[in-house]
Amino acid sequence: MLKLLALVSLLPAWTMMVSAHAVYARQYDTAPTTGAGGDDNGFQAPGPNDARGPCPGLNTLANHGYLPRDGKNITIPIVLQAALDGFNVGPDVVTLAAKGALIAAETPDFFNLTEIALHETFEHDISLSREDFHVDPNNDNIHFNETVFTTLANSNPGVDYYNATSAGQVQKERQDIQNAVNAQLINNVKDFKIRSRESSLYVAVMGNATAGLGTKAPKNYVQIFFREERLPIAEGWKKNDILITADVLRPIQKEIERFSEWQPSGVQPNPWIRLGPDGDIDPLTANSI
Amino acid sequence: MLKLLALVSLLPAWTMMVSAHAVYARQYDTAPTTGAGGDDNGFQAPGPNDARGPCPGLNTLANHGYLPRDGKNITIPIVLQAALDGFNVGPDVVTLAAKGALIAAETPDFFNLTEIALHETFEHDISLSREDFHVDPNNDNIHFNETVFTTLANSNPGVDYYNATSAGQVQKERQDIQNAVNAQLINNVKDFKIRSRESSLYVAVMGNATAGLGTKAPKNYVQIFFREERLPIAEGWKKNDILITADVLRPIQKEIERFSEWQPSGVQPNPWIRLGPDGDIDPLTANSI
Repeated sequence: MLKLLALVSLLPAWTMMVSAHAVYARQYDTAPTTGAGGDDNGFQAPGPNDARGPCPGLNTLANHGYLPRDGKNITIPIVLQAALDGFNVGPDVVTLAAKGALIAAETPDFFNLTEIALHETFEHDISLSREDFHVDPNNDNIHFNETVFTTLANSNPGVDYYNATSAGQVQKERQDIQNAVNAQLINNVKDFKIRSRESSLYVAVMGNATAGLGTKAPKNYVQIFFREERLPIAEGWKKNDILITADVLRPIQKEIERFSEWQPSGVQPNPWIRLGPDGDIDPLTANSI
Repeated sequence: MLKLLALVSLLPAWTMMVSAHAVYARQYDTAPTTGAGGDDNGFQAPGPNDARGPCPGLNTLANHGYLPRDGKNITIPIVLQAALDGFNVGPDVVTLAAKGALIAAETPDFFNLTEIALHETFEHDISLSREDFHVDPNNDNIHFNETVFTTLANSNPGVDYYNATSAGQVQKERQDIQNAVNAQLINNVKDFKIRSRESSLYVAVMGNATAGLGTKAPKNYVQIFFREERLPIAEGWKKNDILITADVLRPIQKEIERFSEWQPSGVQPNPWIRLGPDGDIDPLTANSI
């Protein structure tokens, strides 16, 4: 009984709410941070058994213990809290992405970071830091690829920051490159909108989101974020003071989209969200989902 | 402290697991039933403040307390457990549908039964028991509609059961009817596959799933299920002994699809999963998602 009491004393408040109201009270704003167990949120590279995926943002949150450091058993409340704690990015930005991660996973209400890589659920071609699924000889759309990253790394010459305009230009360059090399490219409006949202996130999170469209993300910070999946705290980066909401991102994303000069291309103009590992990538061709 | 101890003694096992392992251990098979609080699972019609939706199966589970009787704050683990307890339908059948319900909802990791009605997330035209969203003068795609249900009610004449063949014929008849009356009909492969899965469920759950493709669902049971959203226990229905998995449903669904003589029709041949209330129904036309 003493043991039980000791355990009870460790129960975070939300767990008690869960028990008091059966499971009805579970809401993201009462969920624990994964750091509640005493994680100092320092950087630690993943070990060989840790799950990592195609998203540098989520990988970084795991490398700092905002997400489980093993990258596994991630629920929607966990990822919402992690994005708040690690990046000050709001639930309105993250929720849909997290639901997409669930769709990609085989498990009912949690996922691991590798599962997000399922091609064409939310994962997409023309990444800024990963090779396209069908271009990489090992279908590796998960690991950072320095060659792919060259475009972003070398962008916005003459100054020491990236911004919305340069992020759009990078998307255009990347699109031109993959158009030329990927015979199975998928580049429809879904992929484009997801990519543009992601680009808006790196210029806002690594920059000064208070400046809105004028945000400048120091090149050094962005490169550390992509290459090492580390928060560049030692280099001077600080989490933005303001909550980065969809409203904050919208004008930045719009500028990125403008400079992307996007045109749909590839083998599947009709967007679709692949419904898990057994799901079809193109239901119109497959005549099934 | 006594109160606390009393509370602790009521904590179901999964809650303790959650606390012991932070939140990593939460898995559907350790989730509580909503009936754990002492619900007798008797039928009770919903009150004016209870949420109900377009799915007669989920409404029935709520009317019997397998789901929260108010139809709200439903998580994926809750719905998986409810389908098991109420229908003996397995998680492999329900998980994807539950994830779709989350996509339709505005909240992060739970939904209410009304939210499922969001047109063209998983909700679809040519329902067996609801009018099409654009055909009903009030866009009511939620409430049971006796006129719509006439097709199913009168099907398979001369015998007292419905089966896979008759369910397919009903789908064909319903398709013909809505083709003629709905100028904004959406009837692509996604909608068809969802409808066929739903039809396979009523012939399996209300019938004898052990017989596989030979399942016969007594007309009386099926009609009570649709009209009253009640389990026809008083009339003799029993939950199937075998777990109704995707493997069990597959041959039934295949037969239904064959007799449906489905042809895509309507305004949107390209399937898409609408990404929430602010999401576009047809991203190809909207050029956004």
